[in-house]
Amino acid sequence: MREVRVAGVGMIRFGRFPERPIEDMGREAVQKALADAGVHGNQIQETFCGSGYGGPLLGQRILRDMGMTGMAITNVENACSSGTTALREGIAAVAMGRIDTALVIGIDKLTKFGGGTVPLETTDLEVGEGMVMPGLYAMRARRYMHEFGATPKHLAMVSVKAHKNGARNPYAQYQKEVTLEEVMQSRMIADPLTMYMCCPTGDGAAAVVVTTGEKVRQWGVPSVRVLASTLQSGLYKTGFRDMAANELSARTGKLAYEQAGLGPKDINLAEVHDAFAIAEVLYYEALGFCGKGEAKNLIEHGETEIAGRIPVNPSGGLKTRGHPVGATGVAQVCEAVWQLRGQAGGRQVQGAKVALTHCTGGGIAGLDHGACSIHIFTK
Amino acid sequence: MREVRVAGVGMIRFGRFPERPIEDMGREAVQKALADAGVHGNQIQETFCGSGYGGPLLGQRILRDMGMTGMAITNVENACSSGTTALREGIAAVAMGRIDTALVIGIDKLTKFGGGTVPLETTDLEVGEGMVMPGLYAMRARRYMHEFGATPKHLAMVSVKAHKNGARNPYAQYQKEVTLEEVMQSRMIADPLTMYMCCPTGDGAAAVVVTTGEKVRQWGVPSVRVLASTLQSGLYKTGFRDMAANELSARTGKLAYEQAGLGPKDINLAEVHDAFAIAEVLYYEALGFCGKGEAKNLIEHGETEIAGRIPVNPSGGLKTRGHPVGATGVAQVCEAVWQLRGQAGGRQVQGAKVALTHCTGGGIAGLDHGACSIHIFTK
Repeated sequence: MREVRVAGVGMIRFGRFPERPIEDMGREAVQKALADAGVHGNQIQETFCGSGYGGPLLGQRILRDMGMTGMAITNVENACSSGTTALREGIAAVAMGRIDTALVIGIDKLTKFGGGTVPLETTDLEVGEGMVMPGLYAMRARRYMHEFGATPKHLAMVSVKAHKNGARNPYAQYQKEVTLEEVMQSRMIADPLTMYMCCPTGDGAAAVVVTTGEKVRQWGVPSVRVLASTLQSGLYKTGFRDMAANELSARTGKLAYEQAGLGPKDINLAEVHDAFAIAEVLYYEALGFCGKGEAKNLIEHGETEIAGRIPVNPSGGLKTRGHPVGATGVAQVCEAVWQLRGQAGGRQVQGAKVALTHCTGGGIAGLDHGACSIHIFTK
Repeated sequence: MREVRVAGVGMIRFGRFPERPIEDMGREAVQKALADAGVHGNQIQETFCGSGYGGPLLGQRILRDMGMTGMAITNVENACSSGTTALREGIAAVAMGRIDTALVIGIDKLTKFGGGTVPLETTDLEVGEGMVMPGLYAMRARRYMHEFGATPKHLAMVSVKAHKNGARNPYAQYQKEVTLEEVMQSRMIADPLTMYMCCPTGDGAAAVVVTTGEKVRQWGVPSVRVLASTLQSGLYKTGFRDMAANELSARTGKLAYEQAGLGPKDINLAEVHDAFAIAEVLYYEALGFCGKGEAKNLIEHGETEIAGRIPVNPSGGLKTRGHPVGATGVAQVCEAVWQLRGQAGGRQVQGAKVALTHCTGGGIAGLDHGACSIHIFTK
């Protein structure tokens, strides 16, 4: 397998753009990524476009007016892991030598649904009867608090951190700090999750250019190296009543660490899939940043703050950057690249050398067998 | 790149099953493909699921009750080429050595839309104003007839052949022969295309197991070798007013022939994307089975009949096997494998050694930059 590097990244500021065509959001992200890599569209040999809800031939629709469709374009879907599933295929195509340079897009426009949670297409009874993501994560939060003595305040502290970081991220949907009291007293969505403990819905697009080590040296652009590129599917939980452990993320993480030849202690920053505050808490443990039941200590000691031992979601995470399903994973990679290149401004993790990104989708009722994708990058 | 072979295939009979869950259709196809390859589910290392309209995490939904989700599952979309786009990624994963054995699924359930043509998601004016696929292909037919002197009778002869072959295919949605008069006199859909010149909508699923040459020799199963696996995107037509030439299929075909080291004359049978009778006619020329404007000679002399010089769509094609978007490409591969293994019963092409499958999706208004995928197989 050849050395694969991310040569350029770009994204739009996430938000709610009901009147902007999804194709136009994608084009802006692509143009930024191409400019960042210093390449012209005709140097792209394949494109992989990840989207949860973008509809038919989205990659082609984005690229057609850029004169870039005369290549293989593969559209992929894996719920919240759609973007990084596309990335994995792009990385593989370069690693195996099928091509030298790939474009990867992550994108979704959720405002087309008019608001609320996205449609869950399944024949399952629970979803038919009204089960939605916030309800499911609320149950996980209840179970976790019951088992390990965490409190809603711990969850609120995760949200405060997210907003503190997001306020320093020009690409974030919400760029304002909130207090612990504001989080605790915001509208209840699904007890114990208040509004500020849930990510918003919205629209967004992000893109990255991946290529070989040889190419980036020719081009003379700053780049980061891909150390691990993984995708796994399976159950969110480990078994009956074990809702507070994430088997899928743990298994995918183990695979990623093996590929990279690294462990949790080597990670300088992580972008994890904090669709809800409790999710970030569960992933601290699944990814090995602390032991089982110990996440509350991490939170209490500020260890996942930007200046902490293992900064998590310096971008502000899904909570404040926003979560346009297919766009999220690629936006995480943009953040990882900016951090490793030292370009993260007011949210820079000092001296960051190794970054991990983590996306996981599904995990509910008929979609309980989800998809998790973890990547590890280094300078 | 390692030798990649198709070790097993399976599909359900296509049809209209509004009350059958899509997951259940998928499971039946997967079970048949696994049984055909003589493998257990735990020998599958990755799954690629191609679907146009199946919704989130379809591969996971199909495999979850089979205990098969503990692996990477990648869902892909490329309109009518969704199934073979999934196949290409599966073949690549085996060829590059990431895994030894992959499962590929092609599947869609169009009856969920209640009938008629499938929704086209685009911001384009033409589609917003009501342009649909039959209208577009009718215009192509008009242009082709104008340029090359073909007549509606030529189109009808293509449909008669499709029904003759489909009547011998136990997996076909429509298994009855029709006369030239019946085709010509059937209800007009979009002049000159009558009902019998248009493929039906419906539901279907197909699956294949791809693995290495080494594995099939260990397993001792009959298999076929992959000689070419291609995907390209671009414009359906070559330019302004040139609606009667298919640039995308011609370019993808050229690439496939190069990969295989073969030419059109080496192909013993082809499954092509005859969504409309005129489409099959255009693809005869795009794939080099005859020269430009010569398709009517091929038809008049029966050269694309099963006993002809270059049998096209011995399965009955999209016209009679049916066209559940994402399922079609993988069903074509099932047919190619059965033909090469001599198991095609009453529709067997005698002595077939090399088979080509051709899918192309999009090609309309906002989706005018489509996706074409061509594969070539040998014994």
